[in-house]
Amino acid sequence: MPSFFQSVETIASIGELALIERLKPFCAVDAIGDDAALLTVSPRHQLVVTTDMLTDGVHFSDRTTPPYAIGWRATTANLSDLAAMGATPTAITISLGLPGTTSWPWLQSLYQGIADCLQAHGGKIIGGDLCRADQRVISITALGEVLPAQAIKRDQATADMSVVVTGPHGGSRAGLAVLLGEIQADCTTEPVKQWIRAHQQPIPRFDAIAHLRQLIPATSQTTFYPPIAGMDSSDGLANALLQLSSSSGIGMDIVIDHIPLPLGLSATVGPKTALNWALYGGEDFELVLCMSHESARQLITAGVATLIGTTNSTGTVNLRQSPDSEQVAPLNHQSFQHF
Amino acid sequence: MPSFFQSVETIASIGELALIERLKPFCAVDAIGDDAALLTVSPRHQLVVTTDMLTDGVHFSDRTTPPYAIGWRATTANLSDLAAMGATPTAITISLGLPGTTSWPWLQSLYQGIADCLQAHGGKIIGGDLCRADQRVISITALGEVLPAQAIKRDQATADMSVVVTGPHGGSRAGLAVLLGEIQADCTTEPVKQWIRAHQQPIPRFDAIAHLRQLIPATSQTTFYPPIAGMDSSDGLANALLQLSSSSGIGMDIVIDHIPLPLGLSATVGPKTALNWALYGGEDFELVLCMSHESARQLITAGVATLIGTTNSTGTVNLRQSPDSEQVAPLNHQSFQHF
Repeated sequence: MPSFFQSVETIASIGELALIERLKPFCAVDAIGDDAALLTVSPRHQLVVTTDMLTDGVHFSDRTTPPYAIGWRATTANLSDLAAMGATPTAITISLGLPGTTSWPWLQSLYQGIADCLQAHGGKIIGGDLCRADQRVISITALGEVLPAQAIKRDQATADMSVVVTGPHGGSRAGLAVLLGEIQADCTTEPVKQWIRAHQQPIPRFDAIAHLRQLIPATSQTTFYPPIAGMDSSDGLANALLQLSSSSGIGMDIVIDHIPLPLGLSATVGPKTALNWALYGGEDFELVLCMSHESARQLITAGVATLIGTTNSTGTVNLRQSPDSEQVAPLNHQSFQHF
Repeated sequence: MPSFFQSVETIASIGELALIERLKPFCAVDAIGDDAALLTVSPRHQLVVTTDMLTDGVHFSDRTTPPYAIGWRATTANLSDLAAMGATPTAITISLGLPGTTSWPWLQSLYQGIADCLQAHGGKIIGGDLCRADQRVISITALGEVLPAQAIKRDQATADMSVVVTGPHGGSRAGLAVLLGEIQADCTTEPVKQWIRAHQQPIPRFDAIAHLRQLIPATSQTTFYPPIAGMDSSDGLANALLQLSSSSGIGMDIVIDHIPLPLGLSATVGPKTALNWALYGGEDFELVLCMSHESARQLITAGVATLIGTTNSTGTVNLRQSPDSEQVAPLNHQSFQHF
C-alpha cells in the first residue's frame, strides 16, 4: 500500500465503540445512551413515518456523489416524503452498512451532510446502527408530525382542480448526466451548477408546506383542508401524476409547455430529452399538488408553485404540447424501477 | 443455468411495482399508499424509536438462518430494544437491499417471519423500501410507546439493588455453534433444539415487562417507577452489565454460579466455554435489570427473572464463582465489535 494512504484512518482501525463516540456529537444529546430513543409527539398531532435505503452503485457513486452529498441527499429523500404528507420533521435514525476499509473522513463527511440538511430543514438524529457490509448502504427512517386536518394524501383529488408543481423537473437527471460525462457542459456556468446542486443537494419543500398552511389553515382537528391531494416527485413527475390519478380515480390534462424546466436544459440537450428527463428523470423532490383553482392561484401568486394542468373525470392522464393543441397523448409509466 | 432453477421466480423478473403489490398483504392496510405512514401515539405516551441493520455474512447466512428465521430475528432484535425501554410495540418499517437474483419464495418467507413475530409480540408493518444491492441487507426501525413514568433507562441503578436476568444466556451462541458444526450435538434432543431456537427465533421479553408493570404500577405521569435500570443483552450479558454499571456509576458483584445457562450446555461444551458464551455470545435478547431487592423478589417469585448479583458503590463489575467465594475478578469488555 502506498505510504500516502497509511495516514488515513479506516473505520476498522478505529473500532465500533470508538466510532460511536465520534459520531455522538452529531446526535441529539438526550437521545443517546439507551436501547432506544424517547420522543414526545406534540399534542393532537399524528406521527408521520417514512424510510428510504440508498445503496452504492444504485443511488450514488464516488464518481457523482461525494460523501457529504450522499448524506444530504439521503436525508432529503426522507424529509421530502414528510413534506409530501404536509408534516414537520422531528427526528431521524440512520443505519449504515460499511466496508471496514471506509475512511473516517468519508464517514465524518457523510454525517456532516446529514447534520447540515437537518439543520437547514428540521429534525435531529436520535439513533442508528453501524455494521459491516461489503457494499456501502444507508437506511434512514424519518419521523415527523402533522395535525390530522393538515395531512396531505394522494386520494383527495377530484375533477376540475388545478395541478401544480413546486419547481422545475429534470435538474437532478441533468446534474447526473454532467457528472457522468453523458453530456458536455461547462461546470462553471450558473445553470450547470444548478443542475449539479439539484442532484447533490436537493431541497425538501417545507417552504411550500408553510405557504399551504398559511393559505389554507386547518380550522379544527376534525375539519379537513379544502380538498388537496399531493405527493413528491422523487420517482419522477410522470410517476407522481399517474399515482395521484389512480389513487384519486381522476384524469388529468397536462400542458407540456407549462412544465417548468431547469434553466438552460432545453437549449443544451434539446426539448425532447429535456421533457423525458423532466417526466422520468426522478429525484427532483418537488411537490406535485392537486387543489382548487383558487387555492392554486394563491400558491402561484406567492411564487412557490407553477400551474401545469387541470384534473378531470376521465381517469386518464393526457399530455398536450400547448393549451390550444388539439392532439393529446396518454402519459405512460416509464419511470425507474429498482428490479 | 440448470433447468431446475428456471421455475423459481426471481425478484428481478417480478419487478419492483409488482413486488410491492405482493408484499402489501403483509402490511397494515391503512398505512400504505402515501409517501409516508400516519400513526397515532396514545395520549400521554412517549414515542420509543430504535433501529437495527442486519447484513448477510455478518448477522446471518444461508448455512445458519433460513429466510423465515432472518425475518423473525431481525424483528426481535428491534422489538427487544423496545422491551428494554419498557415500551409496547406499535409499528415497524422495513428497508431491504437485495440482489436481483433473490427468489420470491425467499422474500416471501422473510416477510412471513417478520409478520409472525409481530403477530406474536405486537406491532404492524407500516412502510418500507426495497432496493437493489449486491449483498442482502435488512434494516428495521421499530416504534413503540411508553408512559414516561414507565420508561426503563440505563442510568437509574444505585448501590444495594438486586441484579436480575429474565432468562438463560449463551443459548444463541450455542445454537450457532451447532449450525456451523463447531460442536457435535444431536439436533433431535430437546436441549439442542432449544439452542437452535434461541438463535433462529429469539423472543423479545414483553412478558417480563407486563409483569414489571403489574408489580410496580406507575401511579402518575410525573412519578417515576421505584428506581429501576435495565437494558437488553443483545450484545452479550457482559456488555449489558458493564453498560449499566458505567451509565449509572455503580459497581456490581455477580455470582457466576447464579447465571442461568441453557439446558445441557455446560455438560456439552464444559463450564468454561459455557460461561464465555453466556457472557460474550450475545443475541440472547433477555433483559438485564437492576431494582430494589423487594421488587426483584416479586419478579423472581413470578418466575420471570433470576437473581445473579447485587449492585454496590465501587464502580467495578466483579465476578465471583459462588456466593461465598472470596476471590473476585473484574469483568472485561470482550464482546463482539462490528469493526
